[in-house]
Parts: sequence; structure tokens; C-alpha cells
Amino acid sequence: MQLFDLAGREDDLRFSPYCWRVKMALRHKGLECEEIPWRYADKDRIAPSGQGRVPVLIDDGRWIHDSWAISSYLDDAYPDRPALMGTPEARTAARFFNFWCDQTLHPAFRPILLLDIYNAVAEQDKAYFRKSREEQVGMALEQYCAPSEQHLKTLRTLIAPMESTLGEFAFLGGEAPNFSDYVVFGTFQWANVISPKTILAPSSAAQTWFERMLDLFGGYGRRAPTVPKLAAA
Amino acid sequence: MQLFDLAGREDDLRFSPYCWRVKMALRHKGLECEEIPWRYADKDRIAPSGQGRVPVLIDDGRWIHDSWAISSYLDDAYPDRPALMGTPEARTAARFFNFWCDQTLHPAFRPILLLDIYNAVAEQDKAYFRKSREEQVGMALEQYCAPSEQHLKTLRTLIAPMESTLGEFAFLGGEAPNFSDYVVFGTFQWANVISPKTILAPSSAAQTWFERMLDLFGGYGRRAPTVPKLAAA
Repeated sequence: MQLFDLAGREDDLRFSPYCWRVKMALRHKGLECEEIPWRYADKDRIAPSGQGRVPVLIDDGRWIHDSWAISSYLDDAYPDRPALMGTPEARTAARFFNFWCDQTLHPAFRPILLLDIYNAVAEQDKAYFRKSREEQVGMALEQYCAPSEQHLKTLRTLIAPMESTLGEFAFLGGEAPNFSDYVVFGTFQWANVISPKTILAPSSAAQTWFERMLDLFGGYGRRAPTVPKLAAA
Repeated sequence: MQLFDLAGREDDLRFSPYCWRVKMALRHKGLECEEIPWRYADKDRIAPSGQGRVPVLIDDGRWIHDSWAISSYLDDAYPDRPALMGTPEARTAARFFNFWCDQTLHPAFRPILLLDIYNAVAEQDKAYFRKSREEQVGMALEQYCAPSEQHLKTLRTLIAPMESTLGEFAFLGGEAPNFSDYVVFGTFQWANVISPKTILAPSSAAQTWFERMLDLFGGYGRRAPTVPKLAAA
């Protein structure tokens, strides 16, 4: 099994939230997988998937793309392994968390992270990244990401339901982590790997959960190299 | 079993989102319950619950308040009836939807609904409602609720994850409604009962789901009287 995994200016700076969903899902299922560093410029290498974005998984000659499709495939193809989404309720909840991250959290993360990402992507990716993102946000990255307390305040308001839930439950999946946790973990691991900034308040329930997630699978997420961190404010 | 249920200027205008959560939960469990109209001025009538807000359920002499506590109680006390939250995953997801409604959607609904609610509450509640809500929002209700396309736009952006999920699944609980659905239904039924405005786009997945929810239990939610509706924009 092989996974194309977005990498930054060094091979080991792996920051894609969508790839992290799948990497955690693979470990949850106990499946061995080679992680191949990939860059935006490497569209040709994943052309057999029929599109140009990672994660892309190759399993026994089959090419699968999109983090949700890959994770659904893993449950279908390996039903004897621990389920990522073991009930229709768990599956629907995970899909909601998926859209909540993509449609609610990521837009709030964008003014916090885009310039940090630009600084960390590989040289061959910088021009592509700046052009595509500046088209999306309609202005220069430096202007869009101008330091502002408001960005972090907006984000923390939006994660309030997660903070409150994790004040009562160990995982978003309940008593044990499931794909809901891996989806949301991917978003915060994205920030953790690529940004010098502290996102979650140190003593918050969300940060405590994030630490628990970093510890899973023998500290798999914790071993991931990150950019140097600023001292906490 | 008796439930104190917030009522507006007429006994049958029942608009509390928190009471709707419980009323749907009681029907899901197949439990008969007398719904007693209650107004903000009636704090004394629910004093045995030890606090001043509805829903308050009386079951066999026991007073229980708070929609989440009541629904958890119903699953614990009536385990032979259909479960509202049958697995730890379903329970955690429902709690997340609970906080998502309270902390993300309700603040976005407030500038859309507060003046409509003021217009619909009972005469004896108007002074209390205006004073308490104007203290919360820091300005006159008329100013806070000044008509604005932006309010509805903000709300529709926040419900995007729900819209996307319901484009793929019949219910937020998956194949069948569970407490996640009743929680979110309560929020939209609040708006439906109390406001002349159209909130959800008519052909949206969320509106289609809302219609399905109104049809449950023999059209229980659909029979609820509402204020007269404006023609759709």
C-alpha cells in the first residue's frame, strides 16, 4: 500500500489535513503503508487517480483519491480490521465533522495559516501556491494574513462546540477514537506542523484531546516534524 | 408525565428549541406526556426543579430540567424503549450537535429572530424578554434585528456542513432519526413557529430533511401552530 502525502520544503514536513485523516485511519486499521512525499508540482505522479490532489492511495493496483473515499474504502475492503465508522450513526457523524472542518474551520484557519504554509512549501511549489491561493482570497497573502487577534478569536468561537464536547467525552467518537477524531485531528495537525503559532489554549479540553491524539499509535502524530514554534503568548 | 413547555401570546405558539428537543425525544420513545403551557413569568411553577428555565419534566414525582439531562434520563429510565442515543458514538455526536446549535447556530439566529420572538411572546412576558435580551446583546432589539441580508447569509454559511451531510444521508443520525436530529430540528422549528421569515432555501437538503422531521410521529411537528408566514422572497 502506498500513499502520496503532501510534503513541504523538507521531505518530512507533512502538513496536509486531508492526508493526516488517511494516515491516522490507516494506523487505526493496523495497515502498513508507504508514505511517499509529494508536492503540488508533482501532478503527473498521481495522474492515474484521474485528478490532481492528494491524498491518493494505491492498494493492490487500485488508485483511490479523496480522504473520505479512501477511508470509506478502508472500512469496506478490510471489514475484519477495527472499524473507522462502525455504525450508520458513526458514519454520518464523521461525515458531518468532515464538512464542518472543510466548510467552517478551514475558512477560519486560512487567514491564520496561508502565509505560514507559503513559507514552508517547497521552492518549486511557491509560485503555484501563491497564485492559486491569492486567486481564492482575492488579495495578496501578506494582506490577507496580516496579524490580527480577530482571526484567532473567530476560530476559537467556531470550535466552542468541540471544546464543550471534549470537556465531557474523551474523544469525538465517544469512548475511543474513530474517524470523526482523525478528521478533526487532521485540521489541528495541519496547523501544528506548518505554523509557528499556538492555536489551542494550553489548558483547553481541545488541546488535551489533541495531545491524546498525538499519543495514539505509539506517538505517531507526535513524531511528525513541525516548523519551530513561537513561545506561547 | 408532564412537561412545562414555553408558550407565546397564544397557548399554542410553542417556540422553545430546547422544549422541541424533548417533545420529539418523548415521541421517539413512545412516551405519553402532558404539555403544560408555561411563560417566562411563571418561574414559581417550576421552582421545584431548582432553577427557572424550561423544559422541565415531571416523571413519577421526579423533577428534571435541561433538555440534555432530560433526554439522557429518558434513555436511562426507559431502556426498553427505542434509544435516543444507542451507542457512545451516537451520544457524543448528539452532544456535539447540542453545542453546535447552542454556541454556533443560535448566536447567528439571534439577530434574525429576537424581534420576531418579542412580537410573539405573551403580554406578561414582553418587558422581561426585552430587558433580558437587550442586556445580552447590548442594544435595542430594533437596532440589533435591523433587516439585513447579511444575517441570513452568515447563518447559511454556518449550516453548510449540515446541508452537505443531509445531501448524502437521510438523517443526521444516519438511516433513522435520533437525538442528533431532534436537537437540530428544535432550532429550525423554533424559527418556523416564531418567525414569518423563510430560513432554509426551499429546495435545499436541509429543508427537505426539515419536512421529513415535521412528518415524524404522525405529523406532530407539522401540526404545531406558527405565526403567519411571509411570501417566500
